[in-house]
Amino acid sequence: MNDVKTIAQNVYKAYETFLDAGTTKLKNQILLSIAENIEKQKDYLIQENTKDLEKGKKNGLSNAMIDRLTLTDKRIKGMIQACHEIAALTDPIGRISEMNVRPEGFKVGRMRVPIGVIGIIYEARPNVTIEAATLCLKSGNGVILRGGSSSFYSNMALVNVLKDALKENNADPNLISYIESTDRKAVDELLVLDDLVHLIIPRGGEGLIKSVVEKSRIPVLKHYKGICHVYIHQDADMQMALDIAQNAKVQRPGVCNAMETLLVHKDVAAEFLPKALKNLQDAGVEIRGCEKTIAIYNKNVVKATEQDWYDEYLDLVLAVKIVDNESEAIAHINKYGSGHTDAIVTTNISTANSFIKKTDSSSVIVNASTRLADGGVYGLGAEIGISTDRLHARGPMGLEDLTSYKWIVMGEGHLRN
Amino acid sequence: MNDVKTIAQNVYKAYETFLDAGTTKLKNQILLSIAENIEKQKDYLIQENTKDLEKGKKNGLSNAMIDRLTLTDKRIKGMIQACHEIAALTDPIGRISEMNVRPEGFKVGRMRVPIGVIGIIYEARPNVTIEAATLCLKSGNGVILRGGSSSFYSNMALVNVLKDALKENNADPNLISYIESTDRKAVDELLVLDDLVHLIIPRGGEGLIKSVVEKSRIPVLKHYKGICHVYIHQDADMQMALDIAQNAKVQRPGVCNAMETLLVHKDVAAEFLPKALKNLQDAGVEIRGCEKTIAIYNKNVVKATEQDWYDEYLDLVLAVKIVDNESEAIAHINKYGSGHTDAIVTTNISTANSFIKKTDSSSVIVNASTRLADGGVYGLGAEIGISTDRLHARGPMGLEDLTSYKWIVMGEGHLRN
Repeated sequence: MNDVKTIAQNVYKAYETFLDAGTTKLKNQILLSIAENIEKQKDYLIQENTKDLEKGKKNGLSNAMIDRLTLTDKRIKGMIQACHEIAALTDPIGRISEMNVRPEGFKVGRMRVPIGVIGIIYEARPNVTIEAATLCLKSGNGVILRGGSSSFYSNMALVNVLKDALKENNADPNLISYIESTDRKAVDELLVLDDLVHLIIPRGGEGLIKSVVEKSRIPVLKHYKGICHVYIHQDADMQMALDIAQNAKVQRPGVCNAMETLLVHKDVAAEFLPKALKNLQDAGVEIRGCEKTIAIYNKNVVKATEQDWYDEYLDLVLAVKIVDNESEAIAHINKYGSGHTDAIVTTNISTANSFIKKTDSSSVIVNASTRLADGGVYGLGAEIGISTDRLHARGPMGLEDLTSYKWIVMGEGHLRN
Repeated sequence: MNDVKTIAQNVYKAYETFLDAGTTKLKNQILLSIAENIEKQKDYLIQENTKDLEKGKKNGLSNAMIDRLTLTDKRIKGMIQACHEIAALTDPIGRISEMNVRPEGFKVGRMRVPIGVIGIIYEARPNVTIEAATLCLKSGNGVILRGGSSSFYSNMALVNVLKDALKENNADPNLISYIESTDRKAVDELLVLDDLVHLIIPRGGEGLIKSVVEKSRIPVLKHYKGICHVYIHQDADMQMALDIAQNAKVQRPGVCNAMETLLVHKDVAAEFLPKALKNLQDAGVEIRGCEKTIAIYNKNVVKATEQDWYDEYLDLVLAVKIVDNESEAIAHINKYGSGHTDAIVTTNISTANSFIKKTDSSSVIVNASTRLADGGVYGLGAEIGISTDRLHARGPMGLEDLTSYKWIVMGEGHLRN
């Protein structure tokens, strides 16, 4: 078992070679080999996954955790499908979108290149191993994977499948590497190797992410929380407002782009809230309302505390607040929100523009559900995650967000005076 | 004197208000007010600068440091000029370069927005105060400045001028703030405020930058070193090669994009090196050559050690190495270089393309001097620095690199199925 620094050095070397060797054709061939090998090695993958499941049950993992850990037939088909989809994506590497001629006569442009070596630190779901590795491969990056110990056997089996595909296509198998040590210190060792690793993407709970940010000398792209709001403006179409509120909360409450707080303008609260809250309660949603909300609709409404405005429920729970105007709505969103996704329902174009300008979130949505905030829905083709950072990538991240650029200058003997 | 957290909270609040209030017109008015106030307050600025100079001389600062610290008439004119130039730049904020219609019928695009609150930590030169503050202002960001203690009085005077311009135009003076405490701990306090500050740009020596990277929980954009190479390929135009080598080393040796190592293909070494090294020596350059170099030209050539390939001389010193082929040249650059700026001189188009692809540097230059790697020369209008990072911005950074984006969705009641 190699130590973390040796792993990183080997991945770096593989990445460097791949700068030249990693043509679009070769990358796509490797992706198709991965898809084939997953299909061929299905029994082996399920056998190794079973080891994790047995260990998990013995260690008392929750049913939800066991579910996330399980490689079902459907999930294996999903991984194979993902490889084909990523192979079909346009290769961003090498593209020069603009080449300008400077007054002195030389040309200058920017060329898309891989970022370099990317470290992905993740928790239970073993399919992240395939998702992360294939997206890094298509964008020409080397990748160092470190999954949770609960999915150790599944991850190792998937990494073997990935490495086989690299070998079959005469590519360096070190391009996709895995930190086998389950010691937490191994992650700490990785996070200081800023001369070999160029980006860390942590995927998991808040604890994991905070710890990575605190320790890393390498730039981190992360996703903290999704405290998403829908604001019903006084000029909203009432039926549209009811549909959007319902969809944003109920369609899939456990994900980061589900609505957690509903804000309603005081002039339409008496009309909108009784219907909206009844619909939501019928779908099993627990309502926590401000005092003004309760004054309008008090059937099974718990009084919201200050903490409710800060909470990411990820569940069938909703905080509701009546506001006096747009300024109060936006101030609430910018104070209590997480800068993830916030929506307004209004027919007023000037209000919509003002809301877009003032709401400081990675996705600002007019007249649609917050649930649309997603790489696939936005048309990115594949999603490596959602960033709540403001540097490099913000919101849903696609293949292009795994690239950097270099400046290209083409001169004819040009000098600096 | 406010503590660092209070300063950051006030800047954040000013930034939020400015999201709406900071129109292009207002930003340009403030920039012109700054220019006017610098002119009007010239005597006050020079008087405060004199305090720093006297303190510096008493503390035994080197002549070079005293020079960098001095606010001359020319430098004050330069600051005024910079304000006018930044006012004349196109405002990147609010631009939506593309708005796509998704198959479901809603529109999605990305809008340029400020990053948020930017912390700039810098050393001696007081004109960085004006440069950094005006670029952050034009891009709508709040800024927290922290200059070196040696330029304390100059910086405070300049900050007063900046704040006066904000007040005169009814903008919140907290938008541009300065950490007055000269205690090093104040910087450490700033670097953990990742809920209030969104980017740190350290400008200064390697020690400062390493310390910031180690402690910061906030993303950092930085510039480590410039170990730049010029590779003379066997198909180079010899006169062009001589001119470029001379310019890259001699035109301004103390800056990060000056050449530190010259690589020469073995087939042209005997023709190229005697002339090139003679020219360089005539300009006062000390030559440190590999054994093969010395075998061809040994007049006053010191033998290069392994360390020489790693050194950033920033002086009239040059390391010279003869290589067998392009692969050896590129391997040398990627191993010993700093990923800053590297150039090739060749008439062969296929070699040029291959060099561009394989050289892992922020600027890759064909047939021109490494000294061209500069925001102004590239046409960025103004330069906030050069990044040797690969995330967000790489190489020379302009106004647009001080911006982020938000996703904008315009629906008509669209829901997620």
